[in-house]
Amino acid sequence: MIINGQHFHTIWVDGTHSELIKVIDQQKLPWEFSIQSLKIFDDAFVAIQNMTVRGAPLIGVTAAFGIYLGLLKFDNKESLPEYITRLCSTMKTARPTAINLAFAVDKVKLELKNARNIEIAKKIAFETAQKMKQDEIDCSSSIGDHGLILIEEISKKKNGQIVNILTHCNAGWLACIDWGTALAPVYKAHQKGISIHVWVDETRPRNQGNNLTAFELQQEGVPHTVITDNIGGHLMQHGLVDMVLVGSDRTTRTGDVCNKIGTYLKALAAKDNNIPFYVALPSSSFDLTISDGLTEIPIEERDGDEVKYIEGKKGKVQVVPDGSPVANYGFDVTPARLVTGLITEKGIFGANEKEILEMYSRDKVLYL
Amino acid sequence: MIINGQHFHTIWVDGTHSELIKVIDQQKLPWEFSIQSLKIFDDAFVAIQNMTVRGAPLIGVTAAFGIYLGLLKFDNKESLPEYITRLCSTMKTARPTAINLAFAVDKVKLELKNARNIEIAKKIAFETAQKMKQDEIDCSSSIGDHGLILIEEISKKKNGQIVNILTHCNAGWLACIDWGTALAPVYKAHQKGISIHVWVDETRPRNQGNNLTAFELQQEGVPHTVITDNIGGHLMQHGLVDMVLVGSDRTTRTGDVCNKIGTYLKALAAKDNNIPFYVALPSSSFDLTISDGLTEIPIEERDGDEVKYIEGKKGKVQVVPDGSPVANYGFDVTPARLVTGLITEKGIFGANEKEILEMYSRDKVLYL
Repeated sequence: MIINGQHFHTIWVDGTHSELIKVIDQQKLPWEFSIQSLKIFDDAFVAIQNMTVRGAPLIGVTAAFGIYLGLLKFDNKESLPEYITRLCSTMKTARPTAINLAFAVDKVKLELKNARNIEIAKKIAFETAQKMKQDEIDCSSSIGDHGLILIEEISKKKNGQIVNILTHCNAGWLACIDWGTALAPVYKAHQKGISIHVWVDETRPRNQGNNLTAFELQQEGVPHTVITDNIGGHLMQHGLVDMVLVGSDRTTRTGDVCNKIGTYLKALAAKDNNIPFYVALPSSSFDLTISDGLTEIPIEERDGDEVKYIEGKKGKVQVVPDGSPVANYGFDVTPARLVTGLITEKGIFGANEKEILEMYSRDKVLYL
Repeated sequence: MIINGQHFHTIWVDGTHSELIKVIDQQKLPWEFSIQSLKIFDDAFVAIQNMTVRGAPLIGVTAAFGIYLGLLKFDNKESLPEYITRLCSTMKTARPTAINLAFAVDKVKLELKNARNIEIAKKIAFETAQKMKQDEIDCSSSIGDHGLILIEEISKKKNGQIVNILTHCNAGWLACIDWGTALAPVYKAHQKGISIHVWVDETRPRNQGNNLTAFELQQEGVPHTVITDNIGGHLMQHGLVDMVLVGSDRTTRTGDVCNKIGTYLKALAAKDNNIPFYVALPSSSFDLTISDGLTEIPIEERDGDEVKYIEGKKGKVQVVPDGSPVANYGFDVTPARLVTGLITEKGIFGANEKEILEMYSRDKVLYL
């Protein structure tokens, strides 16, 4: 997508030097747009660890490129398989709770299994990373195409009047490589000339709505308005929201959606006002081992300082008085009954076990 | 209630000098506890205007004392009735949208109607202000006593285990003279030794939860935890909230509750999890002329800078990127169907026209 009028991915191989990987430094957004170079394995490791890059798809691709960078420095002090195993084990520790990181690393490791020498290994790692990147772009683009149909339908019903979409947190292209998940349909609609406007929840405590979603939309020229997390219900009561569109960190086989804390409240308000509530996610975000999102998904409790202090343009301010304890749960679970549909790269499905399993069995047939 | 171990009201007459009125400077809370002196009419006017004092009951009482201070400076340049009329008209403009301010001023003016000379007028104004202050304290105390019964019932059902109460914004004693509205039952329960804990919504954009509610509870020694506005739904899903208790700026004859933006979202979550949702309010906050809160109550749109910047301990930081528009609605309306009951100084009533009108007709009989 576009930043300062120029097309970017969140990660790319330098045009003149294929041993140099570049990423957008997302820690500094929206206040500063800065590109960081990843030259060695440790650069990629640190970028994942300190959240220079974030978002499951982007973390996975960065890890893959990181292993490639690691292979460039192979010095024969240990056997190649030992070296590969060491790189992969280390990379997984960059963000131990990011399940997607482990998957990505395992995928690269599997591809490297038959690499007979270091030159072949480098080539395989590079190509695997490039393919993973392209797969993520294709996945986001497909999510966008499927979601676009929903937005087009609303636009037609409204005779071309502005379609108002409310989103929570950031499920945009900065979390992916391009397009995003929840924002992919928004970008596709905007590019197609459909009149849209996005209500951006600021998403306390980390304000990803302000820092990333508003920034993305602004750069892409999509009309939007930033609101506090408290306002969405009021807007829905007054006909100012046509659709809620969010991402998901993990969705159960029964369609319960785990996403950024506060998502559940917006789903309740959508239901109460007969507004469609859609979740956009790659099929890789389903966790088929889990049936009950509320009891089976552990919710991360994060550092209380995220609540106590607010980060802004020039540093941070304390907002909670000294001596008052705080609590900081990172995610909540929206029960399937509140979800109108799940937009995936494979199409749109109902939030129920039958449709979700059908989506997978259809796949099986395709890949057999 | 208690600040730094000492009992305070939000406004009081100086112990040694009855021509000196003192108030807590609420603009500086929670970072600094400072007492401000009101010596002349203009001091009271400015204190209301710049929100040194806030909250409907406190604004009303401050206005009454302000008129008293004005009368102290009467200099016979105009007739006494003319002077009184001028003071009253001016005072009403301190915060033109605060309907309660106009009521309070009209009340003092009515009492002054038969004041034959300035000495009598001064005496009447002083006594009226003092009586209005005491009435507000009694009202809050009664709300506390009625609400206490509900908390006691939950405590018994839980065999004395901690009763968890979630509140939004500040409906505490700082908005009143003492006790508060939504927090009055909390204080009564705490003083009675009932084990309670309060979840304090930070209440973006102005963070009254952090700045006032957490401060109040901390000073009074009530166990509490500050949370972002996004967390309440998750807590309710996991059995961590026994009761939601909020205030109201205006409630219709049908029981629709207008309160700080975000209240509706918590009411929806309470309903979805079978948690009682109570609104504590003085009977003076009912607007019997209105039947449909959603269509008939105009919602104030406030300055966008409240969303764009966040005030903290040492100044403020910008949190919304330059160039992204913001929207800032101050209140929302919780439909009566989501309200378990209304706690008033006259008792607890259902959120429906029948019970609300009965409350008033009962009054009529009492006062006839």
